[in-house]
Amino acid sequence: MLERFKVPAKDIVRVPEPSLRKATAAIFEKMGCSPSDAAEGADTLVVTDLRGVESHGVSNQLRAYVKQYNDGELNPRPKLRTLKETPGTATIDGDRGLGIIIGPRCMKMAIEKAKKVGVGVVTVQNSGHVGAVGHHSMIAAKADMVGMCVTSGGRHVLPTFGAEPRLGTNPISIAAPARKEPFFLYDAATSAIAGNKIFLAERVGSPMLPGWIAKMDGTPVMEEMMSPGRGNYWQLPLGGTREQGSHKGYGLALMVEVLATMLAGSSSAMLGEPRLAQDHFFAAFNIAAFTDVEAFKDRMDAMLKELRTTPPARGQKRVIYPGLSEAEEEQDRRKNGIPLHKEVVQWFDSITAELSIPKLDRMKK
Amino acid sequence: MLERFKVPAKDIVRVPEPSLRKATAAIFEKMGCSPSDAAEGADTLVVTDLRGVESHGVSNQLRAYVKQYNDGELNPRPKLRTLKETPGTATIDGDRGLGIIIGPRCMKMAIEKAKKVGVGVVTVQNSGHVGAVGHHSMIAAKADMVGMCVTSGGRHVLPTFGAEPRLGTNPISIAAPARKEPFFLYDAATSAIAGNKIFLAERVGSPMLPGWIAKMDGTPVMEEMMSPGRGNYWQLPLGGTREQGSHKGYGLALMVEVLATMLAGSSSAMLGEPRLAQDHFFAAFNIAAFTDVEAFKDRMDAMLKELRTTPPARGQKRVIYPGLSEAEEEQDRRKNGIPLHKEVVQWFDSITAELSIPKLDRMKK
Repeated sequence: MLERFKVPAKDIVRVPEPSLRKATAAIFEKMGCSPSDAAEGADTLVVTDLRGVESHGVSNQLRAYVKQYNDGELNPRPKLRTLKETPGTATIDGDRGLGIIIGPRCMKMAIEKAKKVGVGVVTVQNSGHVGAVGHHSMIAAKADMVGMCVTSGGRHVLPTFGAEPRLGTNPISIAAPARKEPFFLYDAATSAIAGNKIFLAERVGSPMLPGWIAKMDGTPVMEEMMSPGRGNYWQLPLGGTREQGSHKGYGLALMVEVLATMLAGSSSAMLGEPRLAQDHFFAAFNIAAFTDVEAFKDRMDAMLKELRTTPPARGQKRVIYPGLSEAEEEQDRRKNGIPLHKEVVQWFDSITAELSIPKLDRMKK
Repeated sequence: MLERFKVPAKDIVRVPEPSLRKATAAIFEKMGCSPSDAAEGADTLVVTDLRGVESHGVSNQLRAYVKQYNDGELNPRPKLRTLKETPGTATIDGDRGLGIIIGPRCMKMAIEKAKKVGVGVVTVQNSGHVGAVGHHSMIAAKADMVGMCVTSGGRHVLPTFGAEPRLGTNPISIAAPARKEPFFLYDAATSAIAGNKIFLAERVGSPMLPGWIAKMDGTPVMEEMMSPGRGNYWQLPLGGTREQGSHKGYGLALMVEVLATMLAGSSSAMLGEPRLAQDHFFAAFNIAAFTDVEAFKDRMDAMLKELRTTPPARGQKRVIYPGLSEAEEEQDRRKNGIPLHKEVVQWFDSITAELSIPKLDRMKK
């Protein structure tokens, strides 16, 4: 993550992972979730924070979910319904369940199918936010598969040359296991930056960079500026301008729309704004069906090592690969606690008091 | 395609599609291919030219293939060998066959599997260039499936922050059918621009734009300049710089490396430079396994129409979606001929003379 998104040192409160996990699960239980669902939801969020992906951890998401449960938008006791099924595929109605909770269940279905026929694909309609898509891909990677998860929904991002938004930030993730190297884990929005990163930047007082957002008439903003605030900008696809490749970010967003929304038998969020317009796609490719698993891991190790030992460009410290700094961050955060913005900790203190849940611990100095 | 890549009007020679197809197939036959393989190869190239994707049609590719056949790198009579197979997957040894010829065969295998278990994935190692990956995805779309094809190989593109290239231009394609609207067809390199586009720009005398290439020490070139010629630059991943999202282009290139190379049981081209280091991934998602096919097409139509009727940004003419301008181009080119650069036509005239094949026709004025 770029430095500009990190919580400034003076605003950091470090909290221990087990306490954050406990408090988060307790909140989900108070929302009406079963204990196992609550634990699953806490796991998705806290593991994401452990990896340093603040944008999709407890800070930005949890209060939104609480509101959605309180407003009755999310169903805390969803009964997943299979709309269609074949040996390699299933289409699921998520019954307004939160994606971060039902997502792991759907990826596990895909994994079971991949064990039988080599590849498994599960699509989900009628579900809430799925969190960091990479979390779900990693579940497959840990089961010796290549995992892929994408999610679509919302209407914030402009198509190339457009003056009105048509697309969600539609992220793509893929994960694959290695042997000694940290696993490969790619997880990124197809917009220039994730929507949540804009809120993070607003919280930490960092400006937007050229090519990230557009004026309301569709003109890409090509100078650095502070976010004009929600409702006063549109997001640009990855690439920013046509010359820099925004048609690729736009096309990849549509790829996600086809895989997640269309294959879930759902209708694109761009055609209206249903309250719960998130569709997900989970795929597991069973490595053993394609090739020798041990040789695969050796080849992954060789590739990932070659990448991280690439000579750096002038002025750069090192080359990393997707998943490497996240693995390093996880080691640090398990030991030294998860750095939250003091405002987020304040929110925890008020919600735990309100719901009569034990207060969030602070790391001992 | 950006205007800068188009053949300048004064250099255009228009040729009729049937004649280009015939001459191209005749060249493949002279290389030793069977008549049906020769026709398949000609189809991949000429359909790509019909869609206006000059970078991957006859202009850049055919003479390279001729050289590879003449040098014995490509096998004109490949016997595909199945290395591993499950109901939903297969890993194929391409026996040094040209990808543009064996690709359609592999996508058809994936389609047959998807008919049975809902999804089919075929990976291929030990094969030559696969051409425009979108061509193969479209074969699935025409069979009422969502088609996906990616290919990896080569070592031209820098990882973010790197000073030495590690990746091919690793393109991603996906296609999905609609009812009245032209099919959705996304096909683009994960580098800032396709390698072949640089050669096209050199041929037509157009400069590189900021964020497309880097100096030899890894520094992104952020001003407009003429290509310094092969061997004097590296390619940048989509995004160009880290701030503009090059880590996403880089990560997507690695996604391709994992799907195509790793799942084909092959070793990344970044670990050496085998002469024929191209691996392919073909996936077919059977729409009928996920949802109602007719409803899917209606929803695709609604989405694609919404996109192309999006109000344009200030100063822009219209919003298009991937596949729309290609479909328009195809209509025009079927009627008015395929515009080739005069140099390309000269090459055809010399090779057809050399191989005693009938000369390429010109469109009648």
